[in-house]
Amino acid sequence: MRYGKEMVQMLKEYRWSNRFMGSRECYDESDVIMVGAPMDYSVSYRPGARFAPQKIREVSYAIEEYSPYVDRDLSEVRFFDVGDLELPMGNIVSSLEIIQQAAREVLEDGKKPIFLGGDHLITYPVVKEVYEKYGDQLRLLHFDAHADLREEYLGERNSHASVIRLCSQFLPSKNIFQFGIRSGTREEFKWAGENLNFYPFEVLQPLKEVIDVLKPYPVYITLDIDVVDPAYACGTGTPEPGGCMPHEIFQAFRAMKGLNIVGMDLVEVNPVYDTAGVTSILAAKIIREAMLII
Amino acid sequence: MRYGKEMVQMLKEYRWSNRFMGSRECYDESDVIMVGAPMDYSVSYRPGARFAPQKIREVSYAIEEYSPYVDRDLSEVRFFDVGDLELPMGNIVSSLEIIQQAAREVLEDGKKPIFLGGDHLITYPVVKEVYEKYGDQLRLLHFDAHADLREEYLGERNSHASVIRLCSQFLPSKNIFQFGIRSGTREEFKWAGENLNFYPFEVLQPLKEVIDVLKPYPVYITLDIDVVDPAYACGTGTPEPGGCMPHEIFQAFRAMKGLNIVGMDLVEVNPVYDTAGVTSILAAKIIREAMLII
Amino acid sequence: MRYGKEMVQMLKEYRWSNRFMGSRECYDESDVIMVGAPMDYSVSYRPGARFAPQKIREVSYAIEEYSPYVDRDLSEVRFFDVGDLELPMGNIVSSLEIIQQAAREVLEDGKKPIFLGGDHLITYPVVKEVYEKYGDQLRLLHFDAHADLREEYLGERNSHASVIRLCSQFLPSKNIFQFGIRSGTREEFKWAGENLNFYPFEVLQPLKEVIDVLKPYPVYITLDIDVVDPAYACGTGTPEPGGCMPHEIFQAFRAMKGLNIVGMDLVEVNPVYDTAGVTSILAAKIIREAMLII
Amino acid sequence: MRYGKEMVQMLKEYRWSNRFMGSRECYDESDVIMVGAPMDYSVSYRPGARFAPQKIREVSYAIEEYSPYVDRDLSEVRFFDVGDLELPMGNIVSSLEIIQQAAREVLEDGKKPIFLGGDHLITYPVVKEVYEKYGDQLRLLHFDAHADLREEYLGERNSHASVIRLCSQFLPSKNIFQFGIRSGTREEFKWAGENLNFYPFEVLQPLKEVIDVLKPYPVYITLDIDVVDPAYACGTGTPEPGGCMPHEIFQAFRAMKGLNIVGMDLVEVNPVYDTAGVTSILAAKIIREAMLII
Amino acid sequence: MRYGKEMVQMLKEYRWSNRFMGSRECYDESDVIMVGAPMDYSVSYRPGARFAPQKIREVSYAIEEYSPYVDRDLSEVRFFDVGDLELPMGNIVSSLEIIQQAAREVLEDGKKPIFLGGDHLITYPVVKEVYEKYGDQLRLLHFDAHADLREEYLGERNSHASVIRLCSQFLPSKNIFQFGIRSGTREEFKWAGENLNFYPFEVLQPLKEVIDVLKPYPVYITLDIDVVDPAYACGTGTPEPGGCMPHEIFQAFRAMKGLNIVGMDLVEVNPVYDTAGVTSILAAKIIREAMLII
Amino acid sequence: MRYGKEMVQMLKEYRWSNRFMGSRECYDESDVIMVGAPMDYSVSYRPGARFAPQKIREVSYAIEEYSPYVDRDLSEVRFFDVGDLELPMGNIVSSLEIIQQAAREVLEDGKKPIFLGGDHLITYPVVKEVYEKYGDQLRLLHFDAHADLREEYLGERNSHASVIRLCSQFLPSKNIFQFGIRSGTREEFKWAGENLNFYPFEVLQPLKEVIDVLKPYPVYITLDIDVVDPAYACGTGTPEPGGCMPHEIFQAFRAMKGLNIVGMDLVEVNPVYDTAGVTSILAAKIIREAMLII
Repeated sequence: MRYGKEMVQMLKEYRWSNRFMGSRECYDESDVIMVGAPMDYSVSYRPGARFAPQKIREVSYAIEEYSPYVDRDLSEVRFFDVGDLELPMGNIVSSLEIIQQAAREVLEDGKKPIFLGGDHLITYPVVKEVYEKYGDQLRLLHFDAHADLREEYLGERNSHASVIRLCSQFLPSKNIFQFGIRSGTREEFKWAGENLNFYPFEVLQPLKEVIDVLKPYPVYITLDIDVVDPAYACGTGTPEPGGCMPHEIFQAFRAMKGLNIVGMDLVEVNPVYDTAGVTSILAAKIIREAMLII
Repeated sequence: MRYGKEMVQMLKEYRWSNRFMGSRECYDESDVIMVGAPMDYSVSYRPGARFAPQKIREVSYAIEEYSPYVDRDLSEVRFFDVGDLELPMGNIVSSLEIIQQAAREVLEDGKKPIFLGGDHLITYPVVKEVYEKYGDQLRLLHFDAHADLREEYLGERNSHASVIRLCSQFLPSKNIFQFGIRSGTREEFKWAGENLNFYPFEVLQPLKEVIDVLKPYPVYITLDIDVVDPAYACGTGTPEPGGCMPHEIFQAFRAMKGLNIVGMDLVEVNPVYDTAGVTSILAAKIIREAMLII
Repeated sequence: MRYGKEMVQMLKEYRWSNRFMGSRECYDESDVIMVGAPMDYSVSYRPGARFAPQKIREVSYAIEEYSPYVDRDLSEVRFFDVGDLELPMGNIVSSLEIIQQAAREVLEDGKKPIFLGGDHLITYPVVKEVYEKYGDQLRLLHFDAHADLREEYLGERNSHASVIRLCSQFLPSKNIFQFGIRSGTREEFKWAGENLNFYPFEVLQPLKEVIDVLKPYPVYITLDIDVVDPAYACGTGTPEPGGCMPHEIFQAFRAMKGLNIVGMDLVEVNPVYDTAGVTSILAAKIIREAMLII
Repeated sequence: MRYGKEMVQMLKEYRWSNRFMGSRECYDESDVIMVGAPMDYSVSYRPGARFAPQKIREVSYAIEEYSPYVDRDLSEVRFFDVGDLELPMGNIVSSLEIIQQAAREVLEDGKKPIFLGGDHLITYPVVKEVYEKYGDQLRLLHFDAHADLREEYLGERNSHASVIRLCSQFLPSKNIFQFGIRSGTREEFKWAGENLNFYPFEVLQPLKEVIDVLKPYPVYITLDIDVVDPAYACGTGTPEPGGCMPHEIFQAFRAMKGLNIVGMDLVEVNPVYDTAGVTSILAAKIIREAMLII
Repeated sequence: MRYGKEMVQMLKEYRWSNRFMGSRECYDESDVIMVGAPMDYSVSYRPGARFAPQKIREVSYAIEEYSPYVDRDLSEVRFFDVGDLELPMGNIVSSLEIIQQAAREVLEDGKKPIFLGGDHLITYPVVKEVYEKYGDQLRLLHFDAHADLREEYLGERNSHASVIRLCSQFLPSKNIFQFGIRSGTREEFKWAGENLNFYPFEVLQPLKEVIDVLKPYPVYITLDIDVVDPAYACGTGTPEPGGCMPHEIFQAFRAMKGLNIVGMDLVEVNPVYDTAGVTSILAAKIIREAMLII
Repeated sequence: MRYGKEMVQMLKEYRWSNRFMGSRECYDESDVIMVGAPMDYSVSYRPGARFAPQKIREVSYAIEEYSPYVDRDLSEVRFFDVGDLELPMGNIVSSLEIIQQAAREVLEDGKKPIFLGGDHLITYPVVKEVYEKYGDQLRLLHFDAHADLREEYLGERNSHASVIRLCSQFLPSKNIFQFGIRSGTREEFKWAGENLNFYPFEVLQPLKEVIDVLKPYPVYITLDIDVVDPAYACGTGTPEPGGCMPHEIFQAFRAMKGLNIVGMDLVEVNPVYDTAGVTSILAAKIIREAMLII
């Protein structure tokens, strides 16, 4: 019959693609690979980040592919959204292995990964693989409300509150740059001040100051949505009042244009607490702005 | 690279299919065709039924393909979910035409349509096409809280409150069977009592009584979710207290096993008001039970 | 009996008036006429704007009639809230006609209309009538997140995404001033840049710059609530992160004091997604500030 | 101008009346008077019942004036909805006085009052006035999940948990009939069993048994919405699982047809917790059914 | 100062106790021990059961200690609520060990445990310890919508969908009684029918039939709140339409009075999806009824 | 048994303490005393502030005890959270007496009170007692969106809208400093301008200007959360668009470091309308910042 001819024209094409808006149809011809990592079982306070990758894809169709900020369009970016990894619910160790394997494959294929969390712990296996490829050249840019430098949290080393500390086990701590941190223990702030490139409270100003320093190096960006104030992003696990505004994040990405960005992730969006869907839409817009400058 | 070999194994397959659980991958080899009709602009009180088809598909994965009630499994049914029709928002006339064309194609291909509304007005063009094929043999079974027999509603003839009256323009009124009606104007109740096979308030009992009468005829089923009590289905446009329980609907479908069902629709699920998603899950379960007896 | 004497003193007067706070009781002795246009069927993403006029009236009683910003009080403004137009649900063409007729009557009576949407498409028939009266003298000020310059949207020309383009069919495009636009296709941005007085991203600064230019002309204001950032106005159909703050809108109206404002509308408030009612309250406050400078 | 001629035809008349659907326009020509008593400050657990009268009026337009259960229409009942009393927030003593005065006026005018709560304490001043008129002939029918027989609650005698006990101070306890009670202290159950006509757990069966006994007397009905199971009425202050279904209440009113009902109230609907508005709609439907048999 | 003398009298005592209503102050003098197990990381669809124990305690104060159904009061039961176990978030293996250790301690002290989940997987370590004490005498009564007999779920053996299958590894399958099951794979239903005492769909009727058979044995009860219909209990992870009503559960416990109940758990309440708190209140009432017959 | 040895180590200590994070265990050894005053019955628009003290305590555990802003930790502050006062619901007069008595005791013991409202009326009895102790030396700093200077509100003098006017009956009006006020009647603004130190609209700038003037005096701070913009604090009774940002409040407290603060309160947080809990978290963070500078 004519299925494929007439009816197909009536179908809402975009509805059938539950890939991020503008995704190519094919992995091989793409340079940037988006992967969902729906893990949230290390979260203590409010679970639900597992739903974020699908929600962000869904609401991405509520914004435009074109960014008037940089006068570019997602159609100019060769990226492919492979979807969500299937993770064994509640098994952190296996989940981290699967995420790491996915990161390895993308990197071995010479492509750049963009991971959608899930909670912040997903950054650990990804950065491990990125480090595997780039070694001590790698610079890690961390945007967050929380320092995430705990040695353990509620008895677990594998926690979203420890993720940057875990990364510092293999990555030289001086390669790590933290921006916007406004919550942590005194120990975390002390350790960060002594060991990292630590820029608490502020995002845009210190970033601009270090851009030139970063230029020679491969850079990985990890962005916890709670770096933005909860007024703009209430859909997150541990909202912390006093954060930056969305346009500072948009400007931050424009400032990073020209850096050799080799991967990134956006984590801790929590659709269960995302009133009116605004946090997910913000995440989709940040992803768009990021992809247009990578 | 190995995309398609290793990573594919990690992906949540079901997430990538946003077809209803158990849908085949192919239209041609299927006997039953599910079509989403996301129209809700004739609704006066609470819009949002446009989101129902996608929501019902999504939550279908929260129940099982296997029905212990009838010891059958969706894998035994050859059905294909073609997705949502693309309708011009706010243009009722064009939307009805597109829905009618989709129904025509499915019927011409010798398949049975299952439409997911959308508001109840979508039933009108579908029944029109089914009547085109089966003529005066056709029997229409209507499960609803509301009689939907208005001659017009807020000045519009094309209204979800008029849909059965519209059908009675071409379908002999004595071919129409109404069950569970518990709300309407005095005129509607009077007209229904005089012209239709009218069984107000009750669902299961009167249905069982007429089953034998229906056996020789092709039967089309239209089910407005608000026939069920709002305790079980609050996610609907015009909730009306005093409805039946879900198991009566399940039993109704088992009672209809053996009838020559040539099509059906399920309408007026409204995800915007569907607290905790329970109405959408109920709709998915009704669809499963229905497909297992068709 | 004494109903009207004693019991009336006990009744909450304001509850009985479901007009906007401070409305006079009479059309004839008022200079400004508020009309609700509960249409939202051209909206693709999140319906519900139809409930906005009633909700805005209801919450208007949660703020004060007195504005300390301009030291004026609504009691000093002779305005009358006539209520909501009765529109045939889902019938765009008829609805636009009814809205246009209402605008015509108000204008013919020498009064200034304030329309409460409803979706943005309601602006089209109102501006048409205003243009009918003022001709090419008319200047249109458009505050919005979206350019609304689509030639069609999902196959419909009559769409809230096309409303300013529709207006440009009769109104010289150079008479149109757009402020705060931060989302659209490349084509829309290009067309706006070439044809309109186009001030994207910013609201207050460019407005102040053109105030003197506008002084000789009759001015109509159309304000889409999503020009404000979704942090302050999440209750809208297509929230777009990165907007202005409420005080910029308040200041914008103070800047427009002295202009010959001949009408205005406020559209796209959506109570269904208006968490805690804050967007509706913001809309009521904007209306108050607007009426005090008209 | 033509305001009153053309535009008025466009206005949604019913929206302008925020009286209960079907209310007459005039107190004097009505036999039944509906009064809102938005008091909820004696509630300990979940405030919000103050919003019930307005909410019930609003949603009354989502059901029909015609009841197919009894084949009657609200247009056949001469009733007038006077609106909400203005009560001084937080001042129980003054509020009770105002409610009592309103009840007195209605009764003195030879009309029957229907009070919409508010919390259950509002029943106290109303029954006091009804008793003033009818004396020891009066029978009080109380439908509730809770016995409301506390001697005090959190140190207050004037509490919604004490309201029936308060009534028993003037009304002979043997004139009080309790139905459906399923929660209370042991003391309350013991006292009720010894002093009242006490029918715990069940509603319809015991009511039918005492109908004949009640026939000679003037009867006042107080109905706490939580007598219905929270599945059907979650929008209430102290939901108690295990209640009756809505149709039992509808049937109860039909059973009471023929009694000399001299007044009634419906209390403890709480819109703040009324998901999807279903509880308010149920309340409106109960009111309709009640008015049709009074 | 007089803190402890005067001010203490003003404090809301119950607020300070966040133990379940009626809990003694001391472990040693209690016979029944309530333990919260806030684990939910094996849940695939909707996390949040971790918040259930605290929520159930909190809302327990909204019902009464006295049960009119059995004319008993919680003050007659010597029970102590020890609070929530501290579990390492996301670490299933360690969490199960901690839960098992807690169960062991309670049992070694000659007391009866009541565990509040958390997800259903918590039942596994508890039953393991109970079996350790009672051996093959132990009978397991399982009330649920789902069979929970998967051999694995999403690659994990330690899953809430496998919990009864896990128990059958040490407990003879003929010692297991399942009631109310209405969802599962065909394999689960087949396996249950062949190996267990399997009573699908119904709860009360089959329970009454086997009561006498159970009398000689120590009995452990595990109750998944989703055995109740989602109309009454929407706050759960995987709502399945078609369940029983709350009063059937209350009656089931009264039917079990006289059995030698040696422990129980109540699982899968999910406060995140618990609209209006009704599911948590239902859980608290079930716990009360259960404790009064143990 | 070993309860107290092993199991206790497993228990979530903080869960068992429902005191504010970091509270000492003992009143006597503390200098600052936190008291909850769950009164909200003078609120007209949206009740629910009664739940604020418990909610703020609960979410306090979602932030850190350490403030990186001032490099101090709550462990350095000797404070004790005594919990909520037990107030007779709906009885304003008695409630005010109980609150006043609690304030008196704390002050007589030479400690500083921090009251958590509740609505703003609770400030009245507390300031009365503070004035009792410090006399005309006392300075009152009032941060709010509303002037709260009504002579009466809906017929009640004891209203949250009158609280500062009530205080001015005993406290010389020139001792009162108002910041951030952006809503009120013309009379209130006029009276404030003539009688108080009145700094409308702005918070931080005018506060800095008067710091030196305040240094010699004992200062009491009353902070209504609605001084912050509703984008950051939608969980409040009467949200008023156009407020300050959270960091201005944090900076205000740092500016007040060194003042002789003798007590404070934080009022009008309303958890019922607190989407995603962000307002409560903000309140907890303000309390932390405040206690670290007192």
